Amino acid sequence: MAYVRPSHAKNHDTSSSKQSTLPEHNRSTGFPPTQIVIQFAADIKPLTIKWVLQKIRGLRREGGAECLVRRHPFSENEAELFVHVAATCNLLLEVAEELEIRKRDKRGILRHFVVKELEEFLLYDGPVEDIFTSAEKQSIVRYELENIRALAEESYLPGYPHLKFYEGQSIISALLHWGLIVQVFPLHDEENVRKLGTQWYLAPFGHQPFNEIKLYFGESVALYFHFLGFYTTALVLPMVFGFYQLLLSPEMLAFFCVFNVLWATGFLEMWRRKCSELAYQWGTISLTSLDDEPRPNFQGQMAIDHITGRFQPQYPRWKTNAKGVEYPDSSLSRSEVSWQMYCVSFPLVILCMCGAFIVMLVSFWCEESVRYMNHSHPLAIYVPSTIYAALVYIMNKYYRTLANFLTEWENHRTQAQFDRHRVTKLVLFEFVNNFMSLFYVAFYMKDLELLRTQLATMLIIFQAINNVQESILPFAFRCYWLKFGNLVKFKRKQKLKRSVHEDYVNLLNPKGGDEGNEDLDIHINLDIPELEPEDSRIDQARRESSMDPYEGTYDDYLELFIQFGYVTLFAAVYPMAAFWAVVNNLFEIRSDAFKLCRIYQRPLSRRVKDIGAWQRAFEVLCTISVMTNCALLYISPSMSNWRSSLSSFEWCLVCIGLEHLLFAIRQVMSLVIPDKPQWVREALAKFNFQSRQALKNQRRSTSIKEQ
Amino acid sequence: MAYVRPSHAKNHDTSSSKQSTLPEHNRSTGFPPTQIVIQFAADIKPLTIKWVLQKIRGLRREGGAECLVRRHPFSENEAELFVHVAATCNLLLEVAEELEIRKRDKRGILRHFVVKELEEFLLYDGPVEDIFTSAEKQSIVRYELENIRALAEESYLPGYPHLKFYEGQSIISALLHWGLIVQVFPLHDEENVRKLGTQWYLAPFGHQPFNEIKLYFGESVALYFHFLGFYTTALVLPMVFGFYQLLLSPEMLAFFCVFNVLWATGFLEMWRRKCSELAYQWGTISLTSLDDEPRPNFQGQMAIDHITGRFQPQYPRWKTNAKGVEYPDSSLSRSEVSWQMYCVSFPLVILCMCGAFIVMLVSFWCEESVRYMNHSHPLAIYVPSTIYAALVYIMNKYYRTLANFLTEWENHRTQAQFDRHRVTKLVLFEFVNNFMSLFYVAFYMKDLELLRTQLATMLIIFQAINNVQESILPFAFRCYWLKFGNLVKFKRKQKLKRSVHEDYVNLLNPKGGDEGNEDLDIHINLDIPELEPEDSRIDQARRESSMDPYEGTYDDYLELFIQFGYVTLFAAVYPMAAFWAVVNNLFEIRSDAFKLCRIYQRPLSRRVKDIGAWQRAFEVLCTISVMTNCALLYISPSMSNWRSSLSSFEWCLVCIGLEHLLFAIRQVMSLVIPDKPQWVREALAKFNFQSRQALKNQRRSTSIKEQ
Repeated sequence: MAYVRPSHAKNHDTSSSKQSTLPEHNRSTGFPPTQIVIQFAADIKPLTIKWVLQKIRGLRREGGAECLVRRHPFSENEAELFVHVAATCNLLLEVAEELEIRKRDKRGILRHFVVKELEEFLLYDGPVEDIFTSAEKQSIVRYELENIRALAEESYLPGYPHLKFYEGQSIISALLHWGLIVQVFPLHDEENVRKLGTQWYLAPFGHQPFNEIKLYFGESVALYFHFLGFYTTALVLPMVFGFYQLLLSPEMLAFFCVFNVLWATGFLEMWRRKCSELAYQWGTISLTSLDDEPRPNFQGQMAIDHITGRFQPQYPRWKTNAKGVEYPDSSLSRSEVSWQMYCVSFPLVILCMCGAFIVMLVSFWCEESVRYMNHSHPLAIYVPSTIYAALVYIMNKYYRTLANFLTEWENHRTQAQFDRHRVTKLVLFEFVNNFMSLFYVAFYMKDLELLRTQLATMLIIFQAINNVQESILPFAFRCYWLKFGNLVKFKRKQKLKRSVHEDYVNLLNPKGGDEGNEDLDIHINLDIPELEPEDSRIDQARRESSMDPYEGTYDDYLELFIQFGYVTLFAAVYPMAAFWAVVNNLFEIRSDAFKLCRIYQRPLSRRVKDIGAWQRAFEVLCTISVMTNCALLYISPSMSNWRSSLSSFEWCLVCIGLEHLLFAIRQVMSLVIPDKPQWVREALAKFNFQSRQALKNQRRSTSIKEQ
Repeated sequence: MAYVRPSHAKNHDTSSSKQSTLPEHNRSTGFPPTQIVIQFAADIKPLTIKWVLQKIRGLRREGGAECLVRRHPFSENEAELFVHVAATCNLLLEVAEELEIRKRDKRGILRHFVVKELEEFLLYDGPVEDIFTSAEKQSIVRYELENIRALAEESYLPGYPHLKFYEGQSIISALLHWGLIVQVFPLHDEENVRKLGTQWYLAPFGHQPFNEIKLYFGESVALYFHFLGFYTTALVLPMVFGFYQLLLSPEMLAFFCVFNVLWATGFLEMWRRKCSELAYQWGTISLTSLDDEPRPNFQGQMAIDHITGRFQPQYPRWKTNAKGVEYPDSSLSRSEVSWQMYCVSFPLVILCMCGAFIVMLVSFWCEESVRYMNHSHPLAIYVPSTIYAALVYIMNKYYRTLANFLTEWENHRTQAQFDRHRVTKLVLFEFVNNFMSLFYVAFYMKDLELLRTQLATMLIIFQAINNVQESILPFAFRCYWLKFGNLVKFKRKQKLKRSVHEDYVNLLNPKGGDEGNEDLDIHINLDIPELEPEDSRIDQARRESSMDPYEGTYDDYLELFIQFGYVTLFAAVYPMAAFWAVVNNLFEIRSDAFKLCRIYQRPLSRRVKDIGAWQRAFEVLCTISVMTNCALLYISPSMSNWRSSLSSFEWCLVCIGLEHLLFAIRQVMSLVIPDKPQWVREALAKFNFQSRQALKNQRRSTSIKEQ
């Protein structure tokens, strides 16, 4: 690569750097590492492609992304156009400052990267852009692409006058939605991912290479693996007690009831602290929904943001007028909770939960009535539960679509808010599906033996199946597809995408048959530089385009959430749950790692400061576990020698007293253990103090200048 | 006053302002308004007075306060030396910037005051120092006086070699502690306080003049009156329902049980929001225990604070070494919770609570056994409760001393932390004293009629007595003293102070008898300018020195806390409590106002951002009220028509179910209602964003300069 260090450093030391940041692909013959690949649909009009690429290459001050692009050379068996997007060094530097990326400088201090002080961040010799990690560079390009937004005068997509933009809509997101772009994905860095793999899934007894994970996959994925590791370590304590009970003393119900609550509360409080340490080290701790970047799908009028002063989509005025009048400082306010949430989403979610609950009850009643029918086939008893399992699967699928739709409609400003509300909706529903049947067994049937059997089944068999299903099977399939079905899947996938959005693009291609010509047009008439035919990235892009995208950490957290429920909710009757959870998690760490590195497309890196709604979800589970464990204590027949002198009513009061005591202890623990470790609080206080001082000084020097 | 505006403005526009801020009393003949009066003990050595005054008048960079002083002219019937302390305009400006006082500038923007931009804050013609409110000026002088700290080389008090300083000890605080200074108090501004009174306690049906209260008494007192007003307004709703129940429907137990919890939770959540609005407007919202100023009694080595960069007492190193090694960034850490709290204070507080509880039980048992003794005197039945009341009074007194001592010993860094921990200790004890007897009546004796009677007695009679006792009586006494006993009380007070600290000063005055000579020495030999003999402040200082000091808002909040307990804990059986609380509070507002303006010395103003531990205390009361109200529902005989079809056990389960539901609702409410209103969050986000940008720019411009 021809990116020589001194020239860039100089560019940025002069105040005219803005003028020198024109796209550089004319100057250099090589093409910098591909950050993101865009795969256009086969039947998109050349005019549209041209317009999109013009946006991507356009100047930032004119609403472009100032990125470099290269297309794949024409190939017979490639219907779609692949465009590789890369960033110049200048762009990386500029946007890194805008995104407030924090880097360590020469004195070892972690602080916001500033272009003008580039020299201070250059720790090693080598290309300037190497101060950014692979995940950071990718984030920067993603940010640039997502922020190509429709301007006021661009009311429709060139080539498709019926496809309207609203002002401020993210253009790439819109084209993805309409099926004109098949997918947008970053390429794996094959050397790094192999190196990462040897330290990670190929080293089953080593520590996880957290730092490398963060550098390669970004904060969101790294935080998940931190959480998984932290949680598994924490599980060792209840596991030890579980073995102790298994081997020596047959009955410690009351002990496990109390211990479990203390352990779970302590674990969640300590995780909160750990999480804030990580967020501080990653520089994400002060991200709030107010100054974080808006989501690409956030709908709003483009205007100057009154907090950051950036040109970004803003909430439409009518939503916030009432407030705006009251406090003139914030005339364009960011409404925090929309009426949609309370008036529509919340009732709908409750309705769905009730529906799922009723389905569960019906299935149980059917099973019972089948059991009492003597003449039935011996296998008939499994019919209701099989039907129930199928129903849950289908309900889940539709409910996810509903939840996505509702959350999108609520129009949350940042990705973190969006995820939080989406996860909240999904978790409530999953709670009913996964735990209600156990509640039924425990507290309606009061069959603790059956409860134990069910828990063991879930923890041992279902978890194992799950692991196989999510990593080994896809890997096997992929090997198969790669050998035999690559092109088939390829085509099918694109068809699927198109059929889903057929209503949008039904006017798309009047000529119908002569796709070949169109393709040829695309490949010949477009004025885009091509990659060298022997460039390895061409093959890589084709290969990875056929992989499934990683849909985010939701499913992984959900697995842990359900497991945590099995471990804590009924800890009093089945303390061995912790052991099986540990066994599963040790395997889970490696299989998730393998999945990310080898099976899925590389995920887009996301900056996060905590695990979002999951923290709350785990805490609620912990609160519920106080109740369930005390209730188990009450109904358990094995406590008979303790309660011999007490009437059932008195014994109930004792259990309720214990429950209240545990609630109180939980409250005190969460009060006494601060959310952030002292050193993080101090570092933040110091940063805030210095910032305040700087603001004062800045105002002072401005006023001196004015005089 | 000779403080002419342009000259000062100029002084501050040049960068040499630091040199021009020498004490100005040589330049001007008048003496600016007295901010604080220091009353020295009669028998203090002249050498010591000289040294202290030298400190007060000394340069700030040499550890002085740079304040102006004037003594009272010699008078036969005044044994102690009164010194008036005032501030030059320059000092006010300089310290205001250091304290980050926020003022509105010409454009109407509220921002940190900066000396160099003085012109922008001058909204009206008039003396420059009038941009600060009376409370702010007083705060500034108090801050200066409190921050005269013993330097490393000053190991003992001149004149008293046995009285040792530790490095960084606040000298004025130490002398107060040793009894060498009798008291330090600000003077009332008689014109303003009269004007305030007519708008406040003399206008029983007007709104409280919150802004004027804040300007005159400072944030701490203003927040108390805001809270009192907010709480009283909120009480109107339960009052209306109380009347409704009284007049129409005799039994709404279940309704009141639910309503009460919703109301109390809603009230506390809304107060939190209101409070953060106020704190934002007052510029105190971002005060934290880490960057707030240290308390005068905070013990630590003087060093450069690693957060603010100021020269302030720091935690001794040995306390924080363990952390310091781990995180080299914070080698001088501020330990957050000391071992003292958990290992000593907490067990002691629990012990005292148990003691108080046992005393209560014994008194109840005595009362019962007296009741069953038939031959006893009819009045004998009142003996146990009278003894109990006396015991509670005595216990309370000693417990307060203990709590003060323990909290002082825990060595909290800021006043807010100190208050929080002190209030927590006191409230736990007060809870036992005030509510346990009601719990006994309600849940052990199960006598709901007696409970109602007791609640009514407490709310009507005790509150009335309390009001009389705290404002009318002292006023009457004061009138009496002023006429007849002024000098007597004067002497007595000083004696008291001295006798308490006799052990410190027993070597103080070997000559014993010839106090008169010493006094003469003081009055003649000291080189301090005197006030003009006809200055009205001399009389005022004498008069106000005999008033009681206002000990802070603790007692006032405590009253509200106890009242809130009466209103919510047993709301289900006595809904009229809200009415009596409103009646009392309407009177309380005026009597507290009267007390502050006319009976007590003017309180030192304090900056606060919330009501501290009281918020938590009220919330805990609210949580407990969920339990008590549901328990009342369970034991109440009047619910018999509802529960006719249920067994006692089932009815218990229903009540517990309701309790859990109410807990869940409380949780959801506190989650859904954000702590800060949207506009405050936005304003803070904007401020933080701008500060971050300024810090970046500052670093940038520094690095440009270096090149």
